[in-house]
Amino acid sequence: MKIEKRWIVSFCIISLLAITSLFWTPSNNLKNEFLLESEINVADVAWLLTSSSFVLLMTPGLSFFYGGMVGRKNVISTMLQSFICLGVISLVWVVVGFSLAFGSSIGFTIDGIHYGIIGNPFDFTFFNNVGVLPHKELASTLPFILFALFQMKFAVITPAIITGSFAERVRFISYLLFICLFTLFIYTPLCHMVWHPNGLLGAYFGIKDFAGGTVVHMSAGFAALAGVLTLGKRKNSEHIPTNIPFVLLGTGMLWFGWFGFNAGSSLAANGTAAMAFATTTIASASAMITWIFFDRINGRKVSALGACIGAVVGLVAITPAAGFITIPESIFFGFITAIVSNKMLYWKKLKAIDDTLDVFACHGIGGIMGMILTAIFAQGENASLLHGGWTIFGHHMIALVLVSSFTFFGSLLLFKITNSIIPLRVSDNSERVGLDLSQHDEKF
Amino acid sequence: MKIEKRWIVSFCIISLLAITSLFWTPSNNLKNEFLLESEINVADVAWLLTSSSFVLLMTPGLSFFYGGMVGRKNVISTMLQSFICLGVISLVWVVVGFSLAFGSSIGFTIDGIHYGIIGNPFDFTFFNNVGVLPHKELASTLPFILFALFQMKFAVITPAIITGSFAERVRFISYLLFICLFTLFIYTPLCHMVWHPNGLLGAYFGIKDFAGGTVVHMSAGFAALAGVLTLGKRKNSEHIPTNIPFVLLGTGMLWFGWFGFNAGSSLAANGTAAMAFATTTIASASAMITWIFFDRINGRKVSALGACIGAVVGLVAITPAAGFITIPESIFFGFITAIVSNKMLYWKKLKAIDDTLDVFACHGIGGIMGMILTAIFAQGENASLLHGGWTIFGHHMIALVLVSSFTFFGSLLLFKITNSIIPLRVSDNSERVGLDLSQHDEKF
Amino acid sequence: MKIEKRWIVSFCIISLLAITSLFWTPSNNLKNEFLLESEINVADVAWLLTSSSFVLLMTPGLSFFYGGMVGRKNVISTMLQSFICLGVISLVWVVVGFSLAFGSSIGFTIDGIHYGIIGNPFDFTFFNNVGVLPHKELASTLPFILFALFQMKFAVITPAIITGSFAERVRFISYLLFICLFTLFIYTPLCHMVWHPNGLLGAYFGIKDFAGGTVVHMSAGFAALAGVLTLGKRKNSEHIPTNIPFVLLGTGMLWFGWFGFNAGSSLAANGTAAMAFATTTIASASAMITWIFFDRINGRKVSALGACIGAVVGLVAITPAAGFITIPESIFFGFITAIVSNKMLYWKKLKAIDDTLDVFACHGIGGIMGMILTAIFAQGENASLLHGGWTIFGHHMIALVLVSSFTFFGSLLLFKITNSIIPLRVSDNSERVGLDLSQHDEKF
Repeated sequence: MKIEKRWIVSFCIISLLAITSLFWTPSNNLKNEFLLESEINVADVAWLLTSSSFVLLMTPGLSFFYGGMVGRKNVISTMLQSFICLGVISLVWVVVGFSLAFGSSIGFTIDGIHYGIIGNPFDFTFFNNVGVLPHKELASTLPFILFALFQMKFAVITPAIITGSFAERVRFISYLLFICLFTLFIYTPLCHMVWHPNGLLGAYFGIKDFAGGTVVHMSAGFAALAGVLTLGKRKNSEHIPTNIPFVLLGTGMLWFGWFGFNAGSSLAANGTAAMAFATTTIASASAMITWIFFDRINGRKVSALGACIGAVVGLVAITPAAGFITIPESIFFGFITAIVSNKMLYWKKLKAIDDTLDVFACHGIGGIMGMILTAIFAQGENASLLHGGWTIFGHHMIALVLVSSFTFFGSLLLFKITNSIIPLRVSDNSERVGLDLSQHDEKF
Repeated sequence: MKIEKRWIVSFCIISLLAITSLFWTPSNNLKNEFLLESEINVADVAWLLTSSSFVLLMTPGLSFFYGGMVGRKNVISTMLQSFICLGVISLVWVVVGFSLAFGSSIGFTIDGIHYGIIGNPFDFTFFNNVGVLPHKELASTLPFILFALFQMKFAVITPAIITGSFAERVRFISYLLFICLFTLFIYTPLCHMVWHPNGLLGAYFGIKDFAGGTVVHMSAGFAALAGVLTLGKRKNSEHIPTNIPFVLLGTGMLWFGWFGFNAGSSLAANGTAAMAFATTTIASASAMITWIFFDRINGRKVSALGACIGAVVGLVAITPAAGFITIPESIFFGFITAIVSNKMLYWKKLKAIDDTLDVFACHGIGGIMGMILTAIFAQGENASLLHGGWTIFGHHMIALVLVSSFTFFGSLLLFKITNSIIPLRVSDNSERVGLDLSQHDEKF
Repeated sequence: MKIEKRWIVSFCIISLLAITSLFWTPSNNLKNEFLLESEINVADVAWLLTSSSFVLLMTPGLSFFYGGMVGRKNVISTMLQSFICLGVISLVWVVVGFSLAFGSSIGFTIDGIHYGIIGNPFDFTFFNNVGVLPHKELASTLPFILFALFQMKFAVITPAIITGSFAERVRFISYLLFICLFTLFIYTPLCHMVWHPNGLLGAYFGIKDFAGGTVVHMSAGFAALAGVLTLGKRKNSEHIPTNIPFVLLGTGMLWFGWFGFNAGSSLAANGTAAMAFATTTIASASAMITWIFFDRINGRKVSALGACIGAVVGLVAITPAAGFITIPESIFFGFITAIVSNKMLYWKKLKAIDDTLDVFACHGIGGIMGMILTAIFAQGENASLLHGGWTIFGHHMIALVLVSSFTFFGSLLLFKITNSIIPLRVSDNSERVGLDLSQHDEKF
C-alpha cells in the first residue's frame, strides 16, 4: 500500500510535538495571577476530579449513542470519529487551545473597558503556567491544572458531537484536519468570548451560559449544519439503526457524564452544584417523556430511540441554564424543547439535506432553545427577561444571532478550506462499501 | 394509525405538568425545619453528588442486566422498561413522590408518640421547600435538594427491578400506569415508614435498613411476584439469553453504582461510608463465587450468567446491613444468600409461575435474607438478635411479615386496578412477534 | 454430569471461609499503629471512595477490551476470566492478601536497616485491625479500610490483565488456581517491596512507582509471557476481532477508571492528584494518536483497534510516573512508548509464541518503558537520572532486572505447579468448539 504524503506529515507533526515537549522549558511568567496553594478547597478538588472524569466518559458515550444509530457498514467509523477526539483535541488543547480559550484577552476597547475575542496563545502554551496553584480569576479554589482539564473535556466532546451530521461519508484524515481547525478558530474564541471574565459575549452582551449550551451545543449544531451542506447527501440515506442497545448505553453514559458537565460547572461542591444536578436530571426526564408521548400522538410508536433522543435534547436544553433556574422551570425547559426539536427533526426541509443523525435538530435547536429560555428565565439581577426586562433579553438575542452566524459561517469556511486541502468526502465506492471497511479495514 | 385516547391523555398530563411548573409559586413555608447554608459539609456534598450519579447509572445497568437475558425479540422493550423509569419516576418524585416519602408524618399515635404511615403530600410538592439549605432531621450536612435527588434515584430503580418478572408480555402503557401507582402507593409509604425519623417500621418496630434492602429490593421482589401472578405465564417460555456480554456489562454497572447506593447511604464522606463500601464489595464477591461453585456441584456448568446473578444477589443481601456489620460477616451474608437464592431459582414451584428473569428469587429472597440476617447481626445497642436479644428480633420479624404482606397484596391490588383500566398483557399475536416490534417498531 | 472432585474442594473452601468468617474474633492488637478518627480528611475520603469505585469499573472494562478482540467462540469465556477476579481476588485479599502486601515487613537487615520482602500474614487476616481509624504510615488521612479497598482493586485487575495472553485455550478451574497463587506469591511480595515504607525495592533501591506501572503492569506482562510459554500456541490462531465496539467500550471504561487508578494514588484530593490526572489523560492521548499514525506510515490502515490499544499503552506507560513528571513530558511518554510497543507487537518472534491479545507487548513493554522513563524523568531529590544522576538510574535498572526476573520466573514456576495439579490447557476438542460452549455452556 502506498503511503500518502498527508500521513507522513501527520506522523511528523506528532513526532515534532513529542520532541518539543521533551525540551520545553516552562517560564512561569504569570506568577502574579495565582494564589497560594493553601487557597485550594480540597472538597472542590474531590468533586472536580470526579466531574472531569464523568465528562471524559461522555465522549465514548457519544460513540455509542451515534454508533448504534448508523447503518451496519459504518458503526465502527462513526464510533472512532467521536473517540479520536480524546486524542487529537486533548493535544491541541495542551499545546495552544487552552491559551486561546482562557489566556489574557485579546480584543478591543469600548468605553474604556477591554473586551476579549480570543486568549493570548502564549500564556499557557504546552500548559506553561498551568500547575497546582489556583488562578485568581478563573477558578480560585482549584489547582489551575484541574480547571484546564475540566475545560479540556468540553473541548473534546464538541467536535465529537458534530460527527453525527456527516456520518457515513466523511474521509477520516480530512475530518481530523477539520476538528483541529474548528477547535482553534471556532471553539476557543467562542469559549473565550462567553466564559473569560473579559469575554465580549459574557462581559458586554451579558449572556449567561452555565455549562456550555452556547459554547458546546449551539456551536456543534451549526458546525454540523455547515458540514452537511458542504458534504452533501449520502448516496443511500435509507437504513435502520443497527444497534438500539448501543444507543441506550450511550444515552446512559451521556446522562451520567452530564452530571459532571453541569454540576461540575459550578466549579465547587456546593449548593449550586446540587441545584444544577437537579435541573439537569429533571429536564432530561421531562423531555424524554414528552418526546415519546408527542411521537405517539403524531402517529409514531413509542420507541427506545425516541426516549434516548428526547433525554439528550432535554440535557442540551438545560445546559446553559442549569444553575440559574428553579426546579419546576426545568420541567418546562425539557417539555418545550422536546416538542420544538421533535418538530424540527421531522421537518421535511431539514430531512432533505440529510443530517444523518439529526445533530442540528437536537444540538443546534436544543442549544438555541436553551439560550432563549435562559434569556427568559435565568435568576439574578439583570440576568434575563423575567429578572431584568426586555433590554437584557434583546442583548441576549443579538448575541444569539452573532453566535449563530459566527459558528455557522465560520465552520462553513473551515469546511471549504479543509475540502480544498484534502477532499472531505470519500469516493463513491468507499461510501458504497461503507467507511468501516474502506477507511479502517474493520467490520462490525 | 389511529391514536388511542390513552396516549392523548398521557400527553395532556405531561403538558399540564409543564404548564403548572411554569406558574408554580413556591411558598417556602417550612423555614424552621432548615439549617443555615453554612452548616453544609462540602466534602459530604462532593461524595453525595458522586454517589447520586453512580445510582443513576444503575438503571441503565439494569437495562443491560435484564436486556441481555431475554429472548432476541424482546431485548429493546425490556431495556426500555427499565430506562423509562428515569423519566416517569423522576417526574412523579418531583411532583409529589418526595413529599409522600419524606414529608411530615401522617399516621397515628401510640403511647403519646406519633408514628408515620406516609408523608404530607403538600410539604414538598414540585420540590417546594427543597433547595440549598440542609434539613435539620433528614440530612443535616447536605443541601436538601441533594438528599431529595439521592432518594430520587432509589425510587427510580425500584420499579425498574420489577420489570424482569413480566418481561416479554407486558403492555408498555399499562406498565407506565402501574409504576406510577406503585411509586405513589407502595414505595413512598414504605420509604416513609422505614426511613422517616417518625416512620412506623423504623421508629416503632426498630427495623434497620441501611440502604434499601427492605424499601427497594423486598418491595420490588414482592411486586414482581404479584405481577407475574396477575399476568400469567408466557406462551413460550423457552429461550436462551440473547447477549451474555450485555449481562456482564449490566452487572459491572450495577456493582459500580451500588457503591453509590450503599456507601452513599451514610450521607457523608466518612468511615461508615468506607465500611459500607467494604461490606458491599466483599458480600458480592463472596456470593458470586459461592453461586458458581454451588451451580457446579449441582451439575450445572460454571457460567458467566451465574457469576453475574450471584454477584447481584450478594449486593441485594448486603444492602440493608452494609453499614451495620463487620467485614468477615459480609462474607457470610454473600455465601448463605447465594445458596438460598440459587435453591429458590431452581425450585420447580417458582419456575412454574414463569417469573421471566427470576426477580423474586433474586431480589425478593435476597431482600428477605438481607432483612433476616440484618436482624441477627446488626451492631449497635438493641439493634439485632446478637446485640439486643430475641425481643428485638421478634419485632423485626413481625415487621418483615408486615412489609411482605403490604408490598405483595398492595401490588396485587394495583396490578388488578391497572389491568381493569388498560389490559396489562399484550395480545397473543404481539407476544408472538415479540414486544420490540409490536410495541416499539424496533428490532435488535 | 459427573462432578469432579476439584469442584467439591472449591465449594468446601468457600464454605469453610464463610463459616470461619462467622466465628472470626477480631483482636485489634495493633492499636498503636493507628491515629484518631479525627485525623481523617473527609475530602480525601470523598475522592478515595470515588476513585476506588472507578478502579472497580476497570475490570469489567478489561472484560470488554479483551472480549471484543477474541474470536466469536471465546468472547464470554474471555470476559468471565477478567470478571471473576472481582470475586476470587477480593476474597483472597481480605483473607490474607492485604496482610502479605501491607503487613509489617518480613525481610532482612542491611546496615542496621530492616528491608521487607513480604508482609506479616497475621497482621490483617480477615481484615482484622482494618477499620475506620487511619494508619499512621500507610494512609494517615483515610480510614484504613478505604486504603485496603483501594489497594484491593489493584490486586483484582492485575491477574485479569494476564488473561489476554492465553485466551481461547485455558481451563477455567486451573486459571482460578493460578490467579490465587499469583496473588499470594508474586503480587503481594512485589507490592510490599515497592510500596511498603520498608519495602526492599522502594526503600533500598529507591525505585518510584506512582500508581502501579511496576507492581501491576510489569508483573502482569511477565506473567502473561510465562503463561503463553507454558500453555503453547493455539491450534488455530487466525481470527478477526469479534466486536470492535466492545473494545471501544472497554477502552472508554479503562480510561475513565484509570483516573481513579492514577489520580487516586495520591491518596488525597490535592494538587498531586490533579497533576496525575493531567499526565494520565495526555499520555494516553499522545500514545493513541502516535499509534494510528505510526500504523499508517507502516502500511496499515488507521483502525479503531489501533486507537484503543495505543490509548491503553499510553495509560500503562504513564502509570509509574503520573505524579512525578511535567505535563509536556507526558506527551513524550505516550509517544515513545507507543512506537516501541507497536514495534514489539508486530515483531515476528513475539508473534510466533502466540500471545493472543499481545499482553506482553502492551503491558509488559509498556510497564518496562514506563519504569525506565520514570527512572530518567521523575522529579524530586535523587529521584531519577535527570534529578539525581547515573547512580540513582543504575539502582533503578538493577531493580528493573530483579522485578522482571522475579515476576517472569516466579510466574513460570507457578504455572508449572498449577499445570501439575490441574492441566492448564483444555482438550483439543474443547479448544475447537471454543471455550464459551465447552467450559461454560454459553454462546455469544
